[in-house]
Amino acid sequence: MKDEQFYMQHAIELAKLTIGQTRPNPSVGAVVVKNGVVIGTGTHMQPGKPHAEVYALQQAGDQAQGATMFVTLEPCSYYGKTPPCAKAIIDAGVDKVYVATLDPNPKVAGTGVAWLREAGIDVEVGVLETEAQHINQTFFHYMKHQKPFVTLKTAVSMDGKTSANSGDSKWITSDEARHDVHTERHRHDAILVGSQTVLRDDPHLTTRLPHGGLNPTRIILDTHLSIPLDANVLTDEEAQTIIVCGQQADVANEKQINAIEQATVWRMESERIDLNDVLEHMTNAKLMSVYVEGGATIHSEFIQHQLFDEIHLYMAPKLIGGELSKVFYNQLGFDYVDDAVAITFSSVDLIGPDIKIVANPRREEGA
Amino acid sequence: MKDEQFYMQHAIELAKLTIGQTRPNPSVGAVVVKNGVVIGTGTHMQPGKPHAEVYALQQAGDQAQGATMFVTLEPCSYYGKTPPCAKAIIDAGVDKVYVATLDPNPKVAGTGVAWLREAGIDVEVGVLETEAQHINQTFFHYMKHQKPFVTLKTAVSMDGKTSANSGDSKWITSDEARHDVHTERHRHDAILVGSQTVLRDDPHLTTRLPHGGLNPTRIILDTHLSIPLDANVLTDEEAQTIIVCGQQADVANEKQINAIEQATVWRMESERIDLNDVLEHMTNAKLMSVYVEGGATIHSEFIQHQLFDEIHLYMAPKLIGGELSKVFYNQLGFDYVDDAVAITFSSVDLIGPDIKIVANPRREEGA
Repeated sequence: MKDEQFYMQHAIELAKLTIGQTRPNPSVGAVVVKNGVVIGTGTHMQPGKPHAEVYALQQAGDQAQGATMFVTLEPCSYYGKTPPCAKAIIDAGVDKVYVATLDPNPKVAGTGVAWLREAGIDVEVGVLETEAQHINQTFFHYMKHQKPFVTLKTAVSMDGKTSANSGDSKWITSDEARHDVHTERHRHDAILVGSQTVLRDDPHLTTRLPHGGLNPTRIILDTHLSIPLDANVLTDEEAQTIIVCGQQADVANEKQINAIEQATVWRMESERIDLNDVLEHMTNAKLMSVYVEGGATIHSEFIQHQLFDEIHLYMAPKLIGGELSKVFYNQLGFDYVDDAVAITFSSVDLIGPDIKIVANPRREEGA
Repeated sequence: MKDEQFYMQHAIELAKLTIGQTRPNPSVGAVVVKNGVVIGTGTHMQPGKPHAEVYALQQAGDQAQGATMFVTLEPCSYYGKTPPCAKAIIDAGVDKVYVATLDPNPKVAGTGVAWLREAGIDVEVGVLETEAQHINQTFFHYMKHQKPFVTLKTAVSMDGKTSANSGDSKWITSDEARHDVHTERHRHDAILVGSQTVLRDDPHLTTRLPHGGLNPTRIILDTHLSIPLDANVLTDEEAQTIIVCGQQADVANEKQINAIEQATVWRMESERIDLNDVLEHMTNAKLMSVYVEGGATIHSEFIQHQLFDEIHLYMAPKLIGGELSKVFYNQLGFDYVDDAVAITFSSVDLIGPDIKIVANPRREEGA
């Protein structure tokens, strides 16, 4: 491993630590090195708080003069909630900056690097670029496509079943897999389920991890506004909830829901909910990523219309069988294997007693 | 890695090379070392041909005097098609023998090691024992349980489907996965499918690998002797075929099949075929392992009655969906997840664009 990869890898580890908690900002890590000695490290921790570069420079102090900085994302070049980092780096007298990847945010998009270069700083872009982009894949996707990153999550037995014959689907996967699921909830801006899931399980859809975690905004697809006003997602005061309904849903019902502080109704312009419209509303609400937990009808629609960017399949070491048991993609489908939706397996891991498989659509454009 | 593990690992690699081709014998490798120099290596290659130890000792020649031998399975102690290896080792003057695992064959079962020790040779048993047993897992299983080792093989899409809505199931998996499947055919004594598979696809069920391979004995479960006399498995002259039928199958039909040189009928004593009876017949025929390729009805019965020792699931990067599409375990099944058949995932690997998942039943006794 080259020297610059060694330090950049550490900056990436710093950034990884904060995936999910910096929303709507990306996760960023920075390391400052001088004469082979690390003199400052930083990671951006929360929106409104200092950026990674600022913490790292603060630690470096006067030693930053003539030092080298490694940062996982292009330093910003605009006055937001904090002053631009590019300026801070110039002011500190840094000599050389390694940037893993440019910032896709149109407010930056190369101007951060341009500022540094104009100030005479030597800048090299592209060290561990793929790894750095992956940390913020939902952010990159949103900036590039102006659409939320859609993750479909499902849990199945080895024979592909999401429930047994009676409909029972409790605890298909292990504690370890559930921990991973809650980490994913923490990392996503929004979580989406259908009204049937709410009517059947009355879930909270919150992040429950041993050391806590951020709750995603809850989005419930409920064409006819059928979920009860005392559903947990409307009353638990844990997170915001958006109920998406069709054009013809009851108006009085809508008012009652809107009167609940944590709840908002999004009324669509069509009788049936069109997922493209939901994603557009999410874009406007700056929800950059959504974790779709089902059920099968909703997963099937996202798949059939190729409106997904990643699938997380947790497989439990069980064989359920049965003719009445359910699968996660049961609607629509294809007559011939050649017509099926093509995906690529990105990773597959044993996770406790279960398997986690991550797949992405096989499209030309990246996420 | 300790020195003895280093040499034993090489002996294991030698044994692995021949998995499948030594039937009904186990695969065995041997290495002879003296003063830190390898002076002989050997692997058992075909039944009736010399055992691994003999080849290794031939290469060592006079130098075997005072040498150390590493062998993956206990040297044999009986006169079979070849003289006992334990005697050859004693005669060669070997000083020390490392044995990975004892031979479960009741004809050996410790007497090989006893012979060596009686002759004053220092014997250590257990170096890389688990790895060595795994090479011959079907042989160990057969010797311990007096039943064939049953592998269920299926190929599914990511959403667990074995076919699309029309029934089309061609080429669900890749060339790489198919190569792996043919390697497994080569490694198993028998291959088993239902009559529906023969009626629909008219397969050969042979091993087709770039450098050839041994064909397994073909077993077709055909309660009513319904497959045509010109089916490939009856006429291709590639391998033996056993047709298993129920008690009431047509006698004239049975005679016609028995008249075909490569075919034999096993008539069961019950109207419906009981898998336990089939496995018992296989045991009597010294078929130690069987690769069950389906279809779903047959897989379901093996699963439901817990008559399997391993499952190989190949998953293709496709999403097929649909309400008419099929899954590999569709019959019977369970009303509650807690009642489902418990398995353990043993390995999971990317294989070309596909995933191969190996699972074993969660039973107290090992394979």
